[in-house]
Amino acid sequence: MSPTDTPALRSLVLGSGGGGGVPQWNCNCRVCRLAWDGDPRVKRRTQSSLAVSADGESWLLLNASIDLREQILARPAMQPKGQGRHSPIAAALLTNTDVDHAAGLLALRERQPFTIWGTRATLDTIGANRIFDVVGRDIVPRRAVRLGERFEPLPGLTLELFAVPGKVPLWLEEGEVKTDEIGEGTVGVAVEAGGRRLVYAPGCAHVTDDLHARIAGAHALFFDGTLFTDDEMKRAGLGDKTSRRMGHQPVSGPGGTLETLSGHAGVRRILIHINNSNPILIEGSPEEQQVKAAGWEVAYDGMEVRP
Amino acid sequence: MSPTDTPALRSLVLGSGGGGGVPQWNCNCRVCRLAWDGDPRVKRRTQSSLAVSADGESWLLLNASIDLREQILARPAMQPKGQGRHSPIAAALLTNTDVDHAAGLLALRERQPFTIWGTRATLDTIGANRIFDVVGRDIVPRRAVRLGERFEPLPGLTLELFAVPGKVPLWLEEGEVKTDEIGEGTVGVAVEAGGRRLVYAPGCAHVTDDLHARIAGAHALFFDGTLFTDDEMKRAGLGDKTSRRMGHQPVSGPGGTLETLSGHAGVRRILIHINNSNPILIEGSPEEQQVKAAGWEVAYDGMEVRP
Repeated sequence: MSPTDTPALRSLVLGSGGGGGVPQWNCNCRVCRLAWDGDPRVKRRTQSSLAVSADGESWLLLNASIDLREQILARPAMQPKGQGRHSPIAAALLTNTDVDHAAGLLALRERQPFTIWGTRATLDTIGANRIFDVVGRDIVPRRAVRLGERFEPLPGLTLELFAVPGKVPLWLEEGEVKTDEIGEGTVGVAVEAGGRRLVYAPGCAHVTDDLHARIAGAHALFFDGTLFTDDEMKRAGLGDKTSRRMGHQPVSGPGGTLETLSGHAGVRRILIHINNSNPILIEGSPEEQQVKAAGWEVAYDGMEVRP
Repeated sequence: MSPTDTPALRSLVLGSGGGGGVPQWNCNCRVCRLAWDGDPRVKRRTQSSLAVSADGESWLLLNASIDLREQILARPAMQPKGQGRHSPIAAALLTNTDVDHAAGLLALRERQPFTIWGTRATLDTIGANRIFDVVGRDIVPRRAVRLGERFEPLPGLTLELFAVPGKVPLWLEEGEVKTDEIGEGTVGVAVEAGGRRLVYAPGCAHVTDDLHARIAGAHALFFDGTLFTDDEMKRAGLGDKTSRRMGHQPVSGPGGTLETLSGHAGVRRILIHINNSNPILIEGSPEEQQVKAAGWEVAYDGMEVRP
């Protein structure tokens, strides 16, 4: 960005689905069946990732989904310009180490300089898996940031990470799992450019006072839309875990997102990281209507938001 | 497969590209530029994976590419049938631990039973990366096989692994790298069903006498088509490594694949794992003509071969 340009916050949804995407590879639940059949009411969705930029030229990925190659092929803004090797993707930040948020780093090899950002805990967890060394540390530095520290991963784009309640990734679960730990393991992100601000929290076990305050100060919110009801997986015969056991506050019901965040009507509110079992993925369904009536939007791949 | 059915060997190319696919996320080389532009001479290609079956119902993946979710969505034979959770993918075998061959395991979570096969060395290398535990070991066993041992991962489908010269994966390279090691690190696969046989060797530093003998006894061969010339990466300004340094025998030139395997004219020969820089990806190019004139085919995504 040249110094005379005015930064303006832009965001582009690369993937709006939760783990597995829509449809999920091995699933014939109601939503997936419609998706496999090409029913126009259900959009196919890749896994959760949001790109943000202050100039529309260089972009920061908030999470790197395992579907990243496909996402780049689908979005001209993410594709190389000019001759030889190039990418508009200048940085990637992980909010946790779930496979759907982190495995996409493996798609960013081929000697392309960029920077990986995260908390020290996140970078250490990734660092313990040598397969990520395929993204050469000599040209792709990993930079740890502290919670509450303001930093500028790209010119004109200011970020701050903050703790949101969550749990260790599925692949590190052992014995009793604490589902609402507050620390460096699961974070939300406040992004600011040109005086506008968005908050991104694709995984959140419950809303803290701190998160309320941050949402109140934002123009747009991308929030955890994983499951609609707490017992959705059980009722669909897809698994034994509740939404809360998975570290995700359900969208509906007592203490759910619609209720908890109803006070933030002035903020543009968008659900993201939506699991394939979630009926809000069916356009026109009662659940989607309920979400819309409560003032929320449902993210889709390719959605552009300029807060 | 019911006992009265006659097994018949089938293979389906899920991905025909090398590491990065075509186009590659950060590349504007000649081939990638055409692919980005949608030029009909260059087919887009996902990363290398071959599915094989004896009954057309349950399938074994030979390598699991990071593009696996996209590949499943593109191929009805790989999609779930019936109600709830299901997958025709009943097993996956890794020929080495390159990211383009192994990272797709991360796409096969969601509590779906199948079996992962590989040499002890390959399973140990993967096992050292806890992120792969997202594919729960309790329902997805990992089974080591010895070189030269015949085994039946699916009813009616018999396999044998054999060493081909290769190197450690890029992400484990340290100091001086031996590029033509013979051991459990890089293997080829002989697949047999219904009296027909195919050999799959997507990475091969040079052709040994053993490999010659195996190809001579096969009906079809899928072979390493990574680079056309040894100095292709250098000449295109894409990197410093030669094809042989990367552990891949080049297609053309002295000691290249066309020359080395010219004696096997009776075998259906197909190049796979083709890097984005390789000019055989441009239909009608002199290099593609040369390959065809020598009796070879160029694999593409969705290609079906019944040897």
